[in-house]
Amino acid sequence: MKQSHLITKTVKSIPKEEVSLNSRLLIQAGFIDKLAAGIYTYLPLGLKALNNISNIVRDEMNKAGGQELLMPALTPKKNWEETGRWDGLDVLFKLKGAGDKEFALGATHEEVVTPLMKKFILSYKDLPKYVYQIQTKYRNEPRAKSGLLRGREFLMKDLYSFHTDSEDLDQYYEVMTKAYFKIFERCGLGDSTHLTYSSGGTFSKYSHEFQTVCKTGEDIVYLCKNCGLGVNKEIIDETPKCPGCEKSEYEEKNAIEVGNIFKLKAKYSDAFKMNFKDKEDKEHPVIMGCYGIGPSRVLGTIVEVHNDKNGMVWPEEVAPFKFHLVNLSKDSVQADKAYEALQKKGIEVLYDDRNEPAGVKLKDADLMGMPYRLVISDKTAEKIELKKRTEDETKLVALEDIDNV
Amino acid sequence: MKQSHLITKTVKSIPKEEVSLNSRLLIQAGFIDKLAAGIYTYLPLGLKALNNISNIVRDEMNKAGGQELLMPALTPKKNWEETGRWDGLDVLFKLKGAGDKEFALGATHEEVVTPLMKKFILSYKDLPKYVYQIQTKYRNEPRAKSGLLRGREFLMKDLYSFHTDSEDLDQYYEVMTKAYFKIFERCGLGDSTHLTYSSGGTFSKYSHEFQTVCKTGEDIVYLCKNCGLGVNKEIIDETPKCPGCEKSEYEEKNAIEVGNIFKLKAKYSDAFKMNFKDKEDKEHPVIMGCYGIGPSRVLGTIVEVHNDKNGMVWPEEVAPFKFHLVNLSKDSVQADKAYEALQKKGIEVLYDDRNEPAGVKLKDADLMGMPYRLVISDKTAEKIELKKRTEDETKLVALEDIDNV
Repeated sequence: MKQSHLITKTVKSIPKEEVSLNSRLLIQAGFIDKLAAGIYTYLPLGLKALNNISNIVRDEMNKAGGQELLMPALTPKKNWEETGRWDGLDVLFKLKGAGDKEFALGATHEEVVTPLMKKFILSYKDLPKYVYQIQTKYRNEPRAKSGLLRGREFLMKDLYSFHTDSEDLDQYYEVMTKAYFKIFERCGLGDSTHLTYSSGGTFSKYSHEFQTVCKTGEDIVYLCKNCGLGVNKEIIDETPKCPGCEKSEYEEKNAIEVGNIFKLKAKYSDAFKMNFKDKEDKEHPVIMGCYGIGPSRVLGTIVEVHNDKNGMVWPEEVAPFKFHLVNLSKDSVQADKAYEALQKKGIEVLYDDRNEPAGVKLKDADLMGMPYRLVISDKTAEKIELKKRTEDETKLVALEDIDNV
Repeated sequence: MKQSHLITKTVKSIPKEEVSLNSRLLIQAGFIDKLAAGIYTYLPLGLKALNNISNIVRDEMNKAGGQELLMPALTPKKNWEETGRWDGLDVLFKLKGAGDKEFALGATHEEVVTPLMKKFILSYKDLPKYVYQIQTKYRNEPRAKSGLLRGREFLMKDLYSFHTDSEDLDQYYEVMTKAYFKIFERCGLGDSTHLTYSSGGTFSKYSHEFQTVCKTGEDIVYLCKNCGLGVNKEIIDETPKCPGCEKSEYEEKNAIEVGNIFKLKAKYSDAFKMNFKDKEDKEHPVIMGCYGIGPSRVLGTIVEVHNDKNGMVWPEEVAPFKFHLVNLSKDSVQADKAYEALQKKGIEVLYDDRNEPAGVKLKDADLMGMPYRLVISDKTAEKIELKKRTEDETKLVALEDIDNV
């Protein structure tokens, strides 16, 4: 795409109440725009990155047998009353529709997916089943100052699994744990993301989170120095020994919660009377698990983790474009030719064809953070200067070698 | 996909208040589920069809130079007050968030896109620009009895164009008109969809709609017998001659509105003071157009138009699967082999591997309406029986010829 055609520009003035690093950099680079606290528009470059994350998540959920559906955000009051969460979940946005009917905007979807799956799960033959959606969720956060890390409107993948018994749930929980690590690896967060134990609430001893170590993270986690497993702050006092290896040396780290997985067991099946018949025609409650990951929060986390003083540094599989071609020559003949040749090869490239000073263009390229920068200037002659965003070193390459980097 | 793995089943009992043909058939076939009036879950088969429509729309918008972004559904009251639509648009869902801040759920996005684009459009050099989103919208419809045709929560593509002057808008309006006809053609609605003139409201003589002729349609349109252009009922009295060819022979038809396009001119630019500077540095308001099409409404319309007494009949580019492979043999050896061979060729096929009577399977295949049915039975020997959903005739084909149909 030609940068002169792009609807956005890099931005100099950031709203001063915008304090989080991720939203400041994303706004500055023209990836997102702020509409209200915790509510953002995804501009073309930001939406491309967000879609890349969603597609990684979708791919891994499909590989784990998940079937995609799409539930509504407008959810009737009566569904939330069945589980006691109409009054119990304080972040619900509530509203009235025609005929004074009351709704909540979905902050999570157990109240929808359970009565839905009850219609299709009758017998043990219908189990196990795994369904997920990638859908916009709403939370009426009292504070929303963390950019994409804690939005009032945000994108969420929530998968729900349905089993005959706890053993089957336990096995699938392991499958999902592996799928989550694969997702974080593909999103460039593999090295810094740890499985942590957190409070299981009323229905389970533990639930689990995936926490990405990051100086600016709002959460405190305790990582086992021996095996890398983590324990969240709220249960560290009651968990003196690592639940993985039983050693007891932790280090305290700031981290961002990027995913969570719960064994719901029969909590929602009981509320909605979702039972299945076994081989002897006896009824049992369906055993459930749920698995959440927010693509928009992952986007913000990537920016918090991968940046330097000059701007953002996108991992390859998430970057809106792999290459940023910057023309510094007075005429555009060579750069136009290179742009067309790369496009013909099917390489996604952002082409800075703007009539701006070299300093502005190079600064913008660093800020926007595509993985590879290609510079054509009067100095590069027939060749093109290639630089990785993560390295200082440049090298001259021939146009025809560019898909080989 | 194996039908035995699918989370859904065909459904026998439809909610009795569900009166529209599209929602009855889609619920019965397990494509959607009803959560509340005008609020539906898209189940895996329905979501696949919906995504196919969205991707057709996206493709045609990209070809017309559109850049995709994603605006929020939660929109602050102050934006709607600028245009007088906080009280003026009676279908707005309104709600309060933290700190008693008021929001509307976006029913349309002029109030968001105009102040957004104001940040990036400064000079004539920044024009024209075209931005669009495919996003969930909300309308607090007093009656919501038409299934996917008039939802309270629905999917919408809205494109907004920004121009220096009316001539440029007029040209792009033609480009969009052609793109819309291309979309309807690809969705199997080409023959039955007409451009119609409707009231332009306060800021333009006419706006235009795309109306699909259909017996069950709620709208009345008058189609010119000479050129096929249409006039909507609300302006037929003041439009005795066809605005296209000036003949005056109309025929009255029921129809479904599947798209609309408006010349907004300076209405919203004035409200938000979105001006650009011309070559002489003089300021002028940006001239706008907007172009809407609802993929979920198109989905419902396809069902209303393409059905018979046995069920739905999907156009090829929208169908969740092109082929429905039905095994009626006692053993599954041949059918399993065929399924694997088709998958290897990259052909998307739904494979009815269920242990159900032949009558049930064939009835379900008709109801679900994939374009081509493949039957393997004891009678077909080495061959496979191929039948188009739209035809009665069957023929025996060899497995290796199946990609040639």
